[in-house]
Amino acid sequence: MKEVSIGIDIGGTNSVYGVVDKAGNILKEGIISTKGHKKAENFVKALHTQLSAILEELDHSIQLEGIGIGAPNGNYYNGTIEFAPNLEWKGVIPLVSLFKKYYDLPVILTNDANAAAIGEMIFGGAQNLKDFIVITLGTGLGSGLVANGNLIYGDNGFAGELGHTIVKLDGRKCGCGRTGCLETYVSATGIVRTLLKKLSDTNEPSILRDSPVNKITSEMIYDAAKKNDKVALEVFDYTGKILGIKLADAVTHTGPKTIFLLGGLAKAGDLIFKPTIKYFKEYALSVFNDTEIRNSGLTDKNAAVLGSAALIWKNKINHHQ
Amino acid sequence: MKEVSIGIDIGGTNSVYGVVDKAGNILKEGIISTKGHKKAENFVKALHTQLSAILEELDHSIQLEGIGIGAPNGNYYNGTIEFAPNLEWKGVIPLVSLFKKYYDLPVILTNDANAAAIGEMIFGGAQNLKDFIVITLGTGLGSGLVANGNLIYGDNGFAGELGHTIVKLDGRKCGCGRTGCLETYVSATGIVRTLLKKLSDTNEPSILRDSPVNKITSEMIYDAAKKNDKVALEVFDYTGKILGIKLADAVTHTGPKTIFLLGGLAKAGDLIFKPTIKYFKEYALSVFNDTEIRNSGLTDKNAAVLGSAALIWKNKINHHQ
Repeated sequence: MKEVSIGIDIGGTNSVYGVVDKAGNILKEGIISTKGHKKAENFVKALHTQLSAILEELDHSIQLEGIGIGAPNGNYYNGTIEFAPNLEWKGVIPLVSLFKKYYDLPVILTNDANAAAIGEMIFGGAQNLKDFIVITLGTGLGSGLVANGNLIYGDNGFAGELGHTIVKLDGRKCGCGRTGCLETYVSATGIVRTLLKKLSDTNEPSILRDSPVNKITSEMIYDAAKKNDKVALEVFDYTGKILGIKLADAVTHTGPKTIFLLGGLAKAGDLIFKPTIKYFKEYALSVFNDTEIRNSGLTDKNAAVLGSAALIWKNKINHHQ
Repeated sequence: MKEVSIGIDIGGTNSVYGVVDKAGNILKEGIISTKGHKKAENFVKALHTQLSAILEELDHSIQLEGIGIGAPNGNYYNGTIEFAPNLEWKGVIPLVSLFKKYYDLPVILTNDANAAAIGEMIFGGAQNLKDFIVITLGTGLGSGLVANGNLIYGDNGFAGELGHTIVKLDGRKCGCGRTGCLETYVSATGIVRTLLKKLSDTNEPSILRDSPVNKITSEMIYDAAKKNDKVALEVFDYTGKILGIKLADAVTHTGPKTIFLLGGLAKAGDLIFKPTIKYFKEYALSVFNDTEIRNSGLTDKNAAVLGSAALIWKNKINHHQ
C-alpha cells in the first residue's frame, strides 16, 4: 500500500488537484471550476465526488493520509479562507470544516505561497535547507518564509506577506488599500504599470506603444525585451531593482540561505534574475552577500498541487519529531 | 541543589555577569573590564578567576548547568565573535573555545539582541508567546526575532539585523558601509543626527542650540522634549515615525504578536511609544493592526545578564522536546 496525500490548489477561476505520493509523483490529477460554484459548500461537494471517483480507481494500491489545500488568504490556524478578494466566496469560509464532513483525515489549509514553500522543502530545491524564502510571482506577489526548518505562520497565521511590504511611501495604489506595496511593482500586473510609467517618462520608441493600453500583458513586455526593445529592457531592470533591494531588506529579518523565485515573472529568466541579483548584492549587508537567488526546484505546473500535498507530509514529519 | 547558569554580557568598555537560577533570580553578579584586556584569551582567563571565586562562595548550594554569553557580532553557530567594530579584539575570536578550556559545560554565544530576546522569552514579557520581536535601542539598533517559539538565527547565524534594513535609499551613512540604515535614524546616535537635521531645516528656537554640537546626547533631547521644546518634540515624532513604518514592514515577514522595545530610547516612554504606535497602525497591513508594541518585561539593568543566562535554559528546553 502506497501512502498518498491529496493536494488541492484553489484558484480564482479553476482549482487543480492531484493524488501525490511521498516521492512527489502525481498519480492522478484533475481540475474543477471554482467560479462555477457560488457557495463553497457546493464546491467541496462537487470536488468530493470527483475525488471519490479518482480514489476508487486507485483504491487497492493506496492509503490516503490527508488532504492539503493551498488557497488565497488561507489561514493555517483557523482552517478558513478569510476575505479573499479574488474568490466569489465572501467573508470567512470554514473550508477545513467543510472538508471534514467528508473526510475523517487530517485536512490542512494555508495560503498558496506558503504551500509553495512547503512544496519546495519536501519535493523541490530546499530539501536540505532549514532557512529559505519562496517568492511566488503571479498576478500579485506571495511569499513563504521558512526558518529553523519550519514555515513561519506568525501569531495569527498571516506572516509572510512580502508582497505588502511598502517599498515606496506614497507610491502606487495597492488592492490592500495602502500605497507603495512591493506587489504593485513586482508582479505580472506591477510590471505593466512600470511599463506605462516608463512610456510616460520618455519619448523612446517601443513596439509596445502600438498596443491598446488595457491589452498589454507581462508576456508582451517579455517578448519585446527579447527583441531588445529598449523600454521593455529598462522595465525589467527596474523591476529587478525593486525586487533586489527589497530582498536585501528581507534577508536581514530571517537570514535565508536561498531565495527561490517561482511563477510567471520568474520564467523571464536572466531578464529578471540578473538585475535582481545585481541590485541585491549592491544593497545587502555584507554578511548576507552569499544568499542565493534562484529558480524554484518545482515547475510551475506542479508546484501548486505538490506544495498543497506536501503540507500533509510536512505535518507527519513534525509529529514524528 | 539549585540549578544555575552564568550569564555574561560583553560590552565594548565593560562586561557584566551574573549567576542566575531558573526563576530569573540573580544570585551573584559582577563586572570586569573588557577594554583592559587587549587579547580575548586574557579576558577569559581573568573572568574565569572572578567566576571561580563567586562559584566557590555558592559552592554547596548550586549546580552550574552552563554559560550563556551575549556579545556584539556574536555568532551562535560558530561560537565566535566576528569583526565586532566596538571591541578591541579584531577579526574572528573563537570565544566559546576559549571558555571551553576552563569549563566542561555547555557554553552558548549569540549577539546581545538575540540574548535579550531569549531573556524576554524565559524571564520577561514573552513567556507565553511563540512569535515576537525584541528591539534593543542603544548606540545602535539590535533585534531578535522569534517564530514558532525559537529564535531565528538564519543560515549563517546573522539573522535579525533590523538595524540594517534600509529605510531611506541614499540616506544617512551607516557604520556598516552602506547608507540609509534604520539605526542611523532610530538609536541614541540616530536621534542626535535627526536633531541636527531639524535644527538645520528650521529657525525654530530650541534650548539645544546652546550646546556644543558634539556634546548633544539623546538624554538632552529627551530632557528638552520634557520641557516642551518644539524641535525636540518633532525629533521624537520623526524617530517614532521611522520606527513605526519600519515595524509595519517587519511584521509582514514574521507576524509577531508583540514587539518589545528595550534600551535607552525606550525609556523615553510616551515620547517614543506614542508616535511609533501611531505610525505603525497607519502603515501596517490591516491583518497586523493588532500587533502590540510595548516595553520589555525586563529592566535594562538585568536584561543583558538574564538574557545571556537564559540561553542555557532555552537550550535545555529544546533538548527535552
